[in-house]
Amino acid sequence: MAIRNAIEADVPEILAFIRALAKYERAPDAVTATEGDLRSHGFGPNPFYQCLIAEEDGRPTGFAFFFFDYSTWIGRPGIYLEDIFVYPEFRGRGIGKALLQRVAAIAVQKGCARLKWEVLDWNTPAIEFYSAMGAQLMDEWRSMRVTGEALARLAGDAVSAETAS
Amino acid sequence: MAIRNAIEADVPEILAFIRALAKYERAPDAVTATEGDLRSHGFGPNPFYQCLIAEEDGRPTGFAFFFFDYSTWIGRPGIYLEDIFVYPEFRGRGIGKALLQRVAAIAVQKGCARLKWEVLDWNTPAIEFYSAMGAQLMDEWRSMRVTGEALARLAGDAVSAETAS
Repeated sequence: MAIRNAIEADVPEILAFIRALAKYERAPDAVTATEGDLRSHGFGPNPFYQCLIAEEDGRPTGFAFFFFDYSTWIGRPGIYLEDIFVYPEFRGRGIGKALLQRVAAIAVQKGCARLKWEVLDWNTPAIEFYSAMGAQLMDEWRSMRVTGEALARLAGDAVSAETAS
Repeated sequence: MAIRNAIEADVPEILAFIRALAKYERAPDAVTATEGDLRSHGFGPNPFYQCLIAEEDGRPTGFAFFFFDYSTWIGRPGIYLEDIFVYPEFRGRGIGKALLQRVAAIAVQKGCARLKWEVLDWNTPAIEFYSAMGAQLMDEWRSMRVTGEALARLAGDAVSAETAS
């Protein structure tokens, strides 16, 4: 098993991982990202994300997709792990653990205070796996989001307020 | 009321907001960030965060602290709102709403797909306020994190594995 940084030529594989993970998370139709999106946002001058690829005999087996966030309490950057996934046929070989360890090593090397991610509450195997790796379940916290038209409406109100003032 | 981008000279006020919010979130001793941390991470060449300050007659009344994340499903950056807070004595005047609207406007302007944040499950007034602004509670998701010594241990395992291979 080898783990390496993704390069631009890996974009089709990255999108395949994203689609496979969405299917596993019971949202197979949620992925509208294109190869062009991932190429321009991850491999330009100011990339929005970084990606690690695990391979076996040259075949991609798993990936970790992350970016930097910031802890206001600790006053240091952190790493936010957006996606981590291993193809089902390659599970049970320590690939997920190795990917998580490598992301943690990058976090420590960059002086980060924490490594953070989200998990579905029904995904007990994942929660148990992460807990065994030293992760804490932040059970008091809930995620909220505004997307699409609701985001445009909220933003539009700000624009109207500025125009009016 | 005015809302403006924070500048380096606002760092003491930003830290005061962070401490006040931590106290409200029942973790008054959790803030170890220093003015130096916030200065170097927010106002250098590659800032880790951005910050808006709301003012009334030159006095800071509220703040929003955020950075960019990335949606692998939509293939576009998003904004992650790490902190939003209005001092209790200035509540009920629409300051929190105006801050959230301004962050949403920045998100739309930057081509972001979503605006995301976390809320404590017992903070019903906040959840109701955000829901009224068009936000969805992502009730299936739970946050996990690895910090401090657990992070170093996880990272250390990766280093050992590399040395051994």
